[in-house]
Amino acid sequence: MARIVMKFGGTSVGDIDRIRNVARRVKREVDAGHEVAVVVSAMSGVTNQLVGYCEALSPLYDAREYDAVVATGEQVTTGLLSIALQAVGVNARSFAGWQIPVRTDDAHGKARIDSIEGADLVLRMGRGEVPVVAGFQGVGPDDRVTTLGRGGSDTSAVALAAALRADRCDIYTDVDGVYTTDPRIVAKARKLNKITYEEMLELASVGAKVLQTRSVELAMKEKVRVQVLSSFADVPGTMVVDEDEIVEKAMVAGIAYARDEAKITLRRVPDRPGIAASVFVPLAEANINVDMIVQNISADGTTDLTFTVNRTDLPRVNAVLEEKAAAIGYAEVLTDSDVSKISIVGVGMRSHTGVASTMFRTLSERGINIQVISTSEIKVSVLVAAEYTELAVRALHTAYGLDAV
Amino acid sequence: MARIVMKFGGTSVGDIDRIRNVARRVKREVDAGHEVAVVVSAMSGVTNQLVGYCEALSPLYDAREYDAVVATGEQVTTGLLSIALQAVGVNARSFAGWQIPVRTDDAHGKARIDSIEGADLVLRMGRGEVPVVAGFQGVGPDDRVTTLGRGGSDTSAVALAAALRADRCDIYTDVDGVYTTDPRIVAKARKLNKITYEEMLELASVGAKVLQTRSVELAMKEKVRVQVLSSFADVPGTMVVDEDEIVEKAMVAGIAYARDEAKITLRRVPDRPGIAASVFVPLAEANINVDMIVQNISADGTTDLTFTVNRTDLPRVNAVLEEKAAAIGYAEVLTDSDVSKISIVGVGMRSHTGVASTMFRTLSERGINIQVISTSEIKVSVLVAAEYTELAVRALHTAYGLDAV
Repeated sequence: MARIVMKFGGTSVGDIDRIRNVARRVKREVDAGHEVAVVVSAMSGVTNQLVGYCEALSPLYDAREYDAVVATGEQVTTGLLSIALQAVGVNARSFAGWQIPVRTDDAHGKARIDSIEGADLVLRMGRGEVPVVAGFQGVGPDDRVTTLGRGGSDTSAVALAAALRADRCDIYTDVDGVYTTDPRIVAKARKLNKITYEEMLELASVGAKVLQTRSVELAMKEKVRVQVLSSFADVPGTMVVDEDEIVEKAMVAGIAYARDEAKITLRRVPDRPGIAASVFVPLAEANINVDMIVQNISADGTTDLTFTVNRTDLPRVNAVLEEKAAAIGYAEVLTDSDVSKISIVGVGMRSHTGVASTMFRTLSERGINIQVISTSEIKVSVLVAAEYTELAVRALHTAYGLDAV
Repeated sequence: MARIVMKFGGTSVGDIDRIRNVARRVKREVDAGHEVAVVVSAMSGVTNQLVGYCEALSPLYDAREYDAVVATGEQVTTGLLSIALQAVGVNARSFAGWQIPVRTDDAHGKARIDSIEGADLVLRMGRGEVPVVAGFQGVGPDDRVTTLGRGGSDTSAVALAAALRADRCDIYTDVDGVYTTDPRIVAKARKLNKITYEEMLELASVGAKVLQTRSVELAMKEKVRVQVLSSFADVPGTMVVDEDEIVEKAMVAGIAYARDEAKITLRRVPDRPGIAASVFVPLAEANINVDMIVQNISADGTTDLTFTVNRTDLPRVNAVLEEKAAAIGYAEVLTDSDVSKISIVGVGMRSHTGVASTMFRTLSERGINIQVISTSEIKVSVLVAAEYTELAVRALHTAYGLDAV
């Protein structure tokens, strides 16, 4: 007998039939003797509709009222799923964030969970009751409803699993696990049976959309075993686990790509101390997230500084750079949105050498020019022209021996 | 300066433009220096959709989960209206039932309000804040969300007005007041400037759909001055007030009709003590509301017993009567759904004689047969064939001098 948190996203509860399907999945775990708590998202489309209402009324809406409005989507699903579970004989009960409570800070619209009161839920589960908990929401210090930001239901589920000391947190979604890369562009992509927290974290942060980054961080910190699996197909998913649970580490576990980057190059900035700060402090103050940064070596007392940001931030980046032109002292700003970031991720990189050079050689053999390189302990990312995205991902997938046989 | 509760129904907040319109109405009262609290319903259509989901999942849904689901409709409106109010410069804040709290009993789906904590709201209103409160909902003894039953937002508004000791409770709706009868069938119907609680109560209970019966009962008990007025047209409405505020009482204040009754006659039941109980106790136990009851005088030791129920209850009435056939001992059951109940209401009946006879004579002159009669202190109701509904209402409207000149 295990204690399991099951989380179902918006597509999985998108209509009445799908909610019934979810109820059958939950019942199966209950019938197998497990203690189960469920976390649900809003029915797909509902959150967008509610956000649309808020934006239509005022582009500068009060985030506290926005939270009061959008949090209702999850509450609806908790009640409906509880009814569906009772209809198949499972003793279920809905919980809004404030009823547990799920305490958060007061950063409305992107709140962080401070604590979850799990004792009462554990007692209920021990009596065979299935709590159905609204994801994505909590209650702030002033007893107002908060939301965690888009995709926050994954984080709710992992936090609940930690609070309940659950054996597993199963994230049901519309894909059946974590793949070596996007199966839509690489037919030979393989589903991974296991992946480490760190790899999953790097993959989530470089474009794999399976799990929200924050939920993986939290799972790693709290040692919650997370499984990603399909709501629709009845096949085993991918376990996200601690590194020591994986005996044979692949050099590269997965390959991700992101098409939403933009590259900015400041030509001929003075090569002197403080120049990086003069660029990146104003960008940070404007709440712009800078991803890759490369500074070439100096020639004639000036250097070229290149960095990438999310494409949607480009107009604001240009505005900041223009305002600070005198302070930075660049000759020219070059921007390019027609780029793609390709990343290879694997804990095996720590012990294997030559992982990065295989990447560079493979791309070079295909005639793909690398514009920017950035590395971390278990990841290498390169920026290439967007038109090479699929070619680069497929070539690397083969080069690292990831192709399914 | 007055303290006002303004209540807006589903049609009045049916879309984004209408919510903006409501915000302007509220702002006008705030700008006039009044202290204002607002009570809102769900956007029209939303509650029906949510109820439909519950029923689709299980006809025998858990009323506690039903409440968790449907109460979200009002929460959405509170947040949206608060955003709209802030956009026009009004300091507004949403409140769900549990946040005030509005305490109710645990009769989920048709809960009754026990208490409303008004002190904090009064402080806020004194600081110029406008609380926007979710109607139709509260929180039960176990901190689960409850709803008051359909139309319950009127009751929420009146109860809030009582808790805040408001000078007035303005119920904004899609009609601009209480009329002498339904203007859709009597062109000469007049809007009343004032009507007494008791008349409003009788009119609401016999078919006038302007206010929910319970809200009028509560207003009468708590002496809350209620005004019914239009969200769309900018004209004075109808004040519902204490009898002593109306100097010149009309004999008949209004005429209502209800087409949703069904008539049942038990032929030749034994005329002995306990026979009425043998019929009506089982019906009450089946939760069937019996409206009019008539028992004719006895002939040959048997009598005919006639009563009316809501048409939708007819199949269940027949089932009960069949089950109890032996115990009751009737010869035959006759049912007729093709009937209409016409009622005249007026506190003037107390002091005027001949009010009922004017009704009977008027209908007789039009050749309309009266099937059942029932009376209360300030009301006379008759059952007639449904085809005579309009003719009867128009004739009575003229006979009692209600026609607009």
